[in-house]
Amino acid sequence: MIEYFVLVYSIILSLHQSTIQIMKYIAEIDIMTRAEILDPQGKAVKLGLHNLQMDTIDNVRIGKHVKLEVEADSESSARDTVDAACRQLLANLIMEDYTFELRTA
Amino acid sequence: MIEYFVLVYSIILSLHQSTIQIMKYIAEIDIMTRAEILDPQGKAVKLGLHNLQMDTIDNVRIGKHVKLEVEADSESSARDTVDAACRQLLANLIMEDYTFELRTA
Repeated sequence: MIEYFVLVYSIILSLHQSTIQIMKYIAEIDIMTRAEILDPQGKAVKLGLHNLQMDTIDNVRIGKHVKLEVEADSESSARDTVDAACRQLLANLIMEDYTFELRTA
Repeated sequence: MIEYFVLVYSIILSLHQSTIQIMKYIAEIDIMTRAEILDPQGKAVKLGLHNLQMDTIDNVRIGKHVKLEVEADSESSARDTVDAACRQLLANLIMEDYTFELRTA
């Protein structure tokens, strides 16, 4: 009798799993130092641009752009994974802010 | 007689200059190594994320994100300035591609 239930349960489970569609998403993440923190690299680039007679450029700030692919069964779980990646590894939350955009691959 | 023309010309010129509206634009520039070029930094970050049990993440690529302000009398001249900045200083055109978005400040 128990075997019967186990069998039915595993069929239902496999059916359920086969209906979960795993999708591939692409995340474009920008990580920038907070506005109140000095950006010497940005300043150096600004001076370089002014030396190239591009004086109309100002307030240059340099950060990281990270592009990655993430597999998930829904956009919200893909968003959670990317958010966790930013919080745990990609961004230094003390000095940096991050924003990201997500699209299907 | 000539003075009269010089006077009229300078009035017209100053009127014309006062009508040219200088606007401030913000450019968000992404600079990434070409897809065919290896990205060891991206690979290292991917392994780091997998160590944090984020195995659904793949193809991590790291680049630069540059944010700057540019003053111009039209969007197209602002776009030209940002394009020149990318070509002449910000991007290494042999190994990198750049894209940017422009919006008024």
